[in-house]
Amino acid sequence: MAVSDLYRDYRLSWFGSEGEAGDVVLASRVRLARNFARLPFPNRADHQQLAEAQNRAASVFSRIEEMAGQAFDAVQIDALTQMEREVLAEKQLVSRSLIQNPAYRSAYISSDRKCSVLVNEDDHLRIHAMASGLDLRTPLEAAFRVDDAVEEKLDVAFDEKMGYLTSCPTNLGTGLRATVLLHLPGLVYTRNMNNIINISQQLGLSVRGLYGEGSETVGNIFAVSNQLTLGFTEQAIIENLMNAATQIIDNERRARKALAMTSKERLEDAIWRSYGVLKYARSLGESEVLELISKVRLGLDLGFLHEATAERFSELLFASRPSYLKNLAGNDNLSQTEIDRKRAAVVRQILSGGAQTQENSP
Amino acid sequence: MAVSDLYRDYRLSWFGSEGEAGDVVLASRVRLARNFARLPFPNRADHQQLAEAQNRAASVFSRIEEMAGQAFDAVQIDALTQMEREVLAEKQLVSRSLIQNPAYRSAYISSDRKCSVLVNEDDHLRIHAMASGLDLRTPLEAAFRVDDAVEEKLDVAFDEKMGYLTSCPTNLGTGLRATVLLHLPGLVYTRNMNNIINISQQLGLSVRGLYGEGSETVGNIFAVSNQLTLGFTEQAIIENLMNAATQIIDNERRARKALAMTSKERLEDAIWRSYGVLKYARSLGESEVLELISKVRLGLDLGFLHEATAERFSELLFASRPSYLKNLAGNDNLSQTEIDRKRAAVVRQILSGGAQTQENSP
Repeated sequence: MAVSDLYRDYRLSWFGSEGEAGDVVLASRVRLARNFARLPFPNRADHQQLAEAQNRAASVFSRIEEMAGQAFDAVQIDALTQMEREVLAEKQLVSRSLIQNPAYRSAYISSDRKCSVLVNEDDHLRIHAMASGLDLRTPLEAAFRVDDAVEEKLDVAFDEKMGYLTSCPTNLGTGLRATVLLHLPGLVYTRNMNNIINISQQLGLSVRGLYGEGSETVGNIFAVSNQLTLGFTEQAIIENLMNAATQIIDNERRARKALAMTSKERLEDAIWRSYGVLKYARSLGESEVLELISKVRLGLDLGFLHEATAERFSELLFASRPSYLKNLAGNDNLSQTEIDRKRAAVVRQILSGGAQTQENSP
Repeated sequence: MAVSDLYRDYRLSWFGSEGEAGDVVLASRVRLARNFARLPFPNRADHQQLAEAQNRAASVFSRIEEMAGQAFDAVQIDALTQMEREVLAEKQLVSRSLIQNPAYRSAYISSDRKCSVLVNEDDHLRIHAMASGLDLRTPLEAAFRVDDAVEEKLDVAFDEKMGYLTSCPTNLGTGLRATVLLHLPGLVYTRNMNNIINISQQLGLSVRGLYGEGSETVGNIFAVSNQLTLGFTEQAIIENLMNAATQIIDNERRARKALAMTSKERLEDAIWRSYGVLKYARSLGESEVLELISKVRLGLDLGFLHEATAERFSELLFASRPSYLKNLAGNDNLSQTEIDRKRAAVVRQILSGGAQTQENSP
């Protein structure tokens, strides 16, 4: 697939319901922070030094492709429109902070879209690898392969005592941030999320809503990540997170069962109404659509609803994001009303099976 | 059709969207109050006298059938279950006050369901005739034919100066109450209903919501009737009402056009959402369903929605009434929750085209 198709496609091979514990886990993600030796961190580097970091990254990419067994698309962030940048961020293939200052920033995105390497974000290199379901080992291995290719050819900033050196001290050591994306409507509706957040913090994990403003989360999707990067091996960090995620998943499943027992009829009604609104509304708000998608997805998992697939609802999550819609309309100045109408149109189209999309995986 | 099918059927030949001005008018109805001479009004009659009124009515019915050109089903109200009585009232084939004291009350219902004669309601005879659309002449003629058959054989209470004598003085004279049932979402949404009600009162007409408690109307369906029965001919009463209705219809159409101009997108969204909820909800409240039906019906008239017919929405009005649903379930003790679920199930069934019904017209 040409990289340009990425901005119009709403499918992502690593995001969905197919993996391990796919009823709760949308995706697993690993990020390694690395910096080139003898070069200031990007936030302290001048243009020449940023260009030098880009050159070093470019010099190892054929080796990375070899090690990864697939081609990567090289994307110059400043060559994209603002809409295209935002779409990549909405799809979590690049970070918000990478696109804030587009000059001298680039990203390498693997053909299967499961790996992306950001150049000159907070660190010279941010290696991201993703997998569907609860699976941090596969992406960790994939990220390590990229890292190996880099370190085979180039010196990276590493201290015997501290480990990998990073721009922000919170990433020091392994430079690893592992994340599991969980859909937790059961815990939210049974008012157990605060418990989960408190316990997770005690386990050195952070839990935050993927969507929503401030502490207001919408769509019941949460990112659970390790907070500590220093003093543990990568394997230990991942084990710890996997164990915590497994417990959260168990709790979520229990909460869903409880809901299905105690509030079956109300829940079923709410789920089907959500489906009806998604299927027919002519205008859908950004937060509203996430809440509706969450309810319908829960309904699919509980077996209350059979009219669509969980996959469709993973697609809807991306297809209903504002920048995706602006880009689809080819108009960055779309009003809120126009975006909401476009969103409803795209949602209807996806639910009716008609696709405005290209296949994602090669 | 057997009379017993009436309780399960939700179609009524005289109610819908097919007649004159069917975009606004659901039905036209005429009622004549008549009393037998030399017999106390029902509220002052003893059992023997009530039975006598029933006998007199029975004695003229073959002549009525001859004049009307069709057979009538004779229904003894006290032989029905409470649910069946309520269903007949919901369908406006009998009145609430007829079924309040079932003993010695009966109804004759024509095969085409466009005419019903109530015995021992407030008056000995209440002759009802209905037509779809804006058409009071056809039902007036039909009611007169029944009245002619009665007066051909029996003496009725009539005073040269006062006209027909009736139990309640508000019906004195012609004994005529003519009613037009109007769907007025445009006037409601543009907040013009109070105007219409005030002007109508000045014209000697009453306007009241067909559904809803007290002054709270739901579903935007209004019954416009003459208040004066004395001092005018039947034809003059009907002309006056037809003229007023025509003006209300014009206003309603203008209001709809204005809405479609000024709030097209919001309205369209609200209409399609209503359709989605009707189509998929698992529980629907009594008031809610009327509001949803009203919106969808408006959407059909404005051409915003094509997925169903206006006929379907006339059917839904009857099929979503509580007693109809109880009777369908064969259980008078259905809880509110159970009724709401049954209502949603029946609505879904009708909208998906599957019918639990028998054809109504012969």
